[in-house]
Amino acid sequence: MSTTAATARVRERLEDYGAAARVRMREYLREGQSRHEFYALVSDYPERGGRALRASLCLATARAFGAHPTEALNSAVALELLHNAFLVHDDLEDESEERRGHPTLHLRHGAPLAINAGDALAVLSLRPLIENVGMLGPRLTLRILEEAERMARESVEGQALELWWRQHHVLELGEVDYLRMVLKKTCWYSTIYPMRVGALIGTRDGVKLDRYLHFGFFVGAAFQIQDDLLNLVGDEARYGKELNGDLWEGKRTLMLIHLLNVTAPDERARLSRVLGTSRAARTGEEVRWIRERMEQYGSLDYARQVAHGLAGAALHEFSRVFAELPDSPDKDFLEALPTWVIERT
Amino acid sequence: MSTTAATARVRERLEDYGAAARVRMREYLREGQSRHEFYALVSDYPERGGRALRASLCLATARAFGAHPTEALNSAVALELLHNAFLVHDDLEDESEERRGHPTLHLRHGAPLAINAGDALAVLSLRPLIENVGMLGPRLTLRILEEAERMARESVEGQALELWWRQHHVLELGEVDYLRMVLKKTCWYSTIYPMRVGALIGTRDGVKLDRYLHFGFFVGAAFQIQDDLLNLVGDEARYGKELNGDLWEGKRTLMLIHLLNVTAPDERARLSRVLGTSRAARTGEEVRWIRERMEQYGSLDYARQVAHGLAGAALHEFSRVFAELPDSPDKDFLEALPTWVIERT
Repeated sequence: MSTTAATARVRERLEDYGAAARVRMREYLREGQSRHEFYALVSDYPERGGRALRASLCLATARAFGAHPTEALNSAVALELLHNAFLVHDDLEDESEERRGHPTLHLRHGAPLAINAGDALAVLSLRPLIENVGMLGPRLTLRILEEAERMARESVEGQALELWWRQHHVLELGEVDYLRMVLKKTCWYSTIYPMRVGALIGTRDGVKLDRYLHFGFFVGAAFQIQDDLLNLVGDEARYGKELNGDLWEGKRTLMLIHLLNVTAPDERARLSRVLGTSRAARTGEEVRWIRERMEQYGSLDYARQVAHGLAGAALHEFSRVFAELPDSPDKDFLEALPTWVIERT
Repeated sequence: MSTTAATARVRERLEDYGAAARVRMREYLREGQSRHEFYALVSDYPERGGRALRASLCLATARAFGAHPTEALNSAVALELLHNAFLVHDDLEDESEERRGHPTLHLRHGAPLAINAGDALAVLSLRPLIENVGMLGPRLTLRILEEAERMARESVEGQALELWWRQHHVLELGEVDYLRMVLKKTCWYSTIYPMRVGALIGTRDGVKLDRYLHFGFFVGAAFQIQDDLLNLVGDEARYGKELNGDLWEGKRTLMLIHLLNVTAPDERARLSRVLGTSRAARTGEEVRWIRERMEQYGSLDYARQVAHGLAGAALHEFSRVFAELPDSPDKDFLEALPTWVIERT
């Protein structure tokens, strides 16, 4: 399959599944709107769109394993609600200014209501999971909740790691630290969990979930690295966040960790000083300087190579663990995913 | 029963049940500590103590309905973890400075890690509820999760209401608005839900839960009003929060709402101006002025009367809905609760 065909296939699937998930998500949000105007805030991020990658991955995996798509719809919707909850709190924690092309929620409504709206989205994500019981029965519903608890725990722990590094000015980091953090912060909820739940539903809890862990990790890590690269080189209008935002925020991306490890001692000392200041105290000149050093030391090329390596490993894993599944458009979607991840702009 | 005897009875029960809940809660928190130093932050509020009212109410109700206390322990622990999650985010949203006699978590570690620690506590609260399945079976476990989702939703909606009033400078409020907000923000998770879950476990889902709603609402609302009164007149060392903190925060307490409704037009205009500024812009003189006007207009006495009325209504409800239960120390505890709530200092 050519890369263009792979990308087109993924896009098409994302559109279909994303639309189905959004329709159902709105039903859950609308119910709240009848109770208080505050739900306009809660619905803000979900209504901004987004590609619904996580919901699609959950729906596609369930279907590839033989489920009817409606059987995984509640789990997919719950995941999108939780994803939006994470985004609201992440944006606050990172002091981000833009999300999906608009000001972040806390810039629009202040930190107190934004913290609360994030909490509300997390709480709302529980309902569809509990309501699984009508279609999937109590045992499978509880198994999915068990997986959801693990996934949410991995995610907050991963986010804690990243925040800790920034707050405590941690600079002695290597690729292994980075990948461990990304495994927890990004992969668990973006790729590993959606596929585990899809497989649980498709096989009625009849498969060893740890088989799919590696594929999810490789795809998810490649996705995160590509996302961080787009923050530095992307097209702002399409990217939906401020360019170089990660540098303003001092985020420990793979590029920054690479730069810290290869740069000359005097430059490293300057880099350390710049990262030691608060976001507000950082200047545009300093941000440009970091960006230029990354170019000079090949940090972006290095990260691109790692992302490509991870995508290749994912393709290898795919042929190892999914080969036994019958051919289907959903299986094709899963196979095309690693290619799409590193091709997207 | 004399009021002193009632208070002593409640205190004793709180100590016993609180100790049991704290031991189990530490087990859940310790597991995390093996994974990352960040869990020291997550454990901070839980380790500061607190009276474990919610856990005790859950354990006592379960036992009054015939359960073995260990059957409700997981649900009680989950509730304490969620309570601590709420406290961390509430303190951020209210810009509070003290909690249980120490600086608030965000003052100690910054807003980003504090938001994340609150999220972690909320996620951790799910585990004991899911692990109920071993002792209570899948159906009852799911029923409790259903109740927990409703409770958490009511709580975030109640908190949203209060934040909304402050953020949007809402002053046209009456006692009904206040009680509706407190029903959602405080009563659902502090009194209504703990008793509902206790009754669910004690009767194996064999009782109509709405019967206990009124008792929980009356006790919970009296509890919140008394708590807000203590913020104005309490002993700071025992109270554990800064005195007059609610006035600094512009919190819409029953006393403030009373004052807004009875004060002379020129004073109301001044009050509106003061409440319209940010916490940072408010002065000690302005806070003292509000406090004095409350004294002058009898706002504190009015709130005390409402709290007493609610406690009396709770006692009436108790005799209406709990009379059929066999006598037990736990039934006595429930009966003594309304008295304790308004007597505590």
